[in-house]
Amino acid sequence: MNTTFFANLASLAETYDHQLPELPPLLPVPPGAAIAGWIDHTLLKPEATPVQVEQLCREALEYRFAAVCVNAGYIGQVAHLLSGSPVMACSVVGFPLGATSASTKAFETLNCLEAGAQEIDMVIHIGRLKAAAYPEVLADIQGVVQVAHAGGAQVKVIIETCLLTRQEKILACLLSREAGADFVKTSTGFASGGAAADDIDLMRRVVGAGLGVKASGGVRSYQDALAMIQAGATRIGTSSGIKIVQESQSQSTETA
Amino acid sequence: MNTTFFANLASLAETYDHQLPELPPLLPVPPGAAIAGWIDHTLLKPEATPVQVEQLCREALEYRFAAVCVNAGYIGQVAHLLSGSPVMACSVVGFPLGATSASTKAFETLNCLEAGAQEIDMVIHIGRLKAAAYPEVLADIQGVVQVAHAGGAQVKVIIETCLLTRQEKILACLLSREAGADFVKTSTGFASGGAAADDIDLMRRVVGAGLGVKASGGVRSYQDALAMIQAGATRIGTSSGIKIVQESQSQSTETA
Repeated sequence: MNTTFFANLASLAETYDHQLPELPPLLPVPPGAAIAGWIDHTLLKPEATPVQVEQLCREALEYRFAAVCVNAGYIGQVAHLLSGSPVMACSVVGFPLGATSASTKAFETLNCLEAGAQEIDMVIHIGRLKAAAYPEVLADIQGVVQVAHAGGAQVKVIIETCLLTRQEKILACLLSREAGADFVKTSTGFASGGAAADDIDLMRRVVGAGLGVKASGGVRSYQDALAMIQAGATRIGTSSGIKIVQESQSQSTETA
Repeated sequence: MNTTFFANLASLAETYDHQLPELPPLLPVPPGAAIAGWIDHTLLKPEATPVQVEQLCREALEYRFAAVCVNAGYIGQVAHLLSGSPVMACSVVGFPLGATSASTKAFETLNCLEAGAQEIDMVIHIGRLKAAAYPEVLADIQGVVQVAHAGGAQVKVIIETCLLTRQEKILACLLSREAGADFVKTSTGFASGGAAADDIDLMRRVVGAGLGVKASGGVRSYQDALAMIQAGATRIGTSSGIKIVQESQSQSTETA
């Protein structure tokens, strides 16, 4: 990665800012209870207790959510409770500010993997993106991706859309794809805003069909989830997963 | 540390909940510009850029604040800019949720020390405190304190008062003191509430005269800072440090 590479990346972001690539073909909306397989059942409050985490895992096993997403301190408990099931153990890393060092993010990722994590949702270094320090932003993501992939885990890159300009969102997606990430993800749920269909559309167009797009933050109903999926999301992060599945089921019944 | 130790600690917290210890003698309020020496000049927004961090350090050197407090990703830059000055480089750890693993917090502390940190402001594991998992909460703090003290750095323990009951606040202070921390600190500034004079009074009574007490979150004026110091605070964390010093100076002029 030389200076030319990053200059070209910045030019591409500028081009995309004027004219986004076409929207790739989207997957059909999963019907009824199948939507659960697209949902990360999530509990990230700092005051969450081990008992609440256990309850979250029990619900995830019952509804067959894609994953259970928790803070790193609980990933061992989650991996243990989900062991042998198709539900994945997902930990956030560098969460929610993304403002720790690259080596701490890489260490935290390794620590999560050793505890059984199968998915890592990391936050980019937002301030360095704003400062156009693209090599550092890329290296920060790569550090996590390398550790995670070596351990067979997927990485979702949280870009915190509500704090970014349109061009910064594009750059964050390009850098995530370049770093080999598996997903880009809108929000931590701890900043001023969450997922917006417009942002999902932008992210899907920029990363193309090859990566996942996760909508998170403020997705609280089936209507919210549907809007995200129809804009290009393939994963939903929410603490309202059960409600969304139930609403999706009654939707299917009505339209059957 | 055996089961009896933690049972005794819980009993003590219950006793204190009914009747707090006496307030130890407090230090006099520093007059005029001297208040700067009690202030941690702070910038913790995830979107903070290196240029803003540089400006923060320049201001800290000019006003002679106690420390510059930033996220871990910027501590190297801060330590470099403050090098040779009496202003300390302070990094937050496990910030702001406190919900990562103990080993990640210890690693992050080491990483900050290697980058030049002289003070570490760590967040406790709030969920485990609520679950009465006191041995784990203590070990989490101890892990950071051991690494920090081995490198000659002080540790402030953020207990996030707005998320705790009165008895949990007492326990958090007792556990911090037991772990060998140098300060207890009220808030991250990222939860629903910040420093309150009542909490400072409680914290000062519980830790006694031997530890520092840092008021942070929502301290935006000289009046705010004064209320905290008169309740027992010996350090103020704020992004309004310059305004507070200026107000303190005009206060001194008026009363001179």
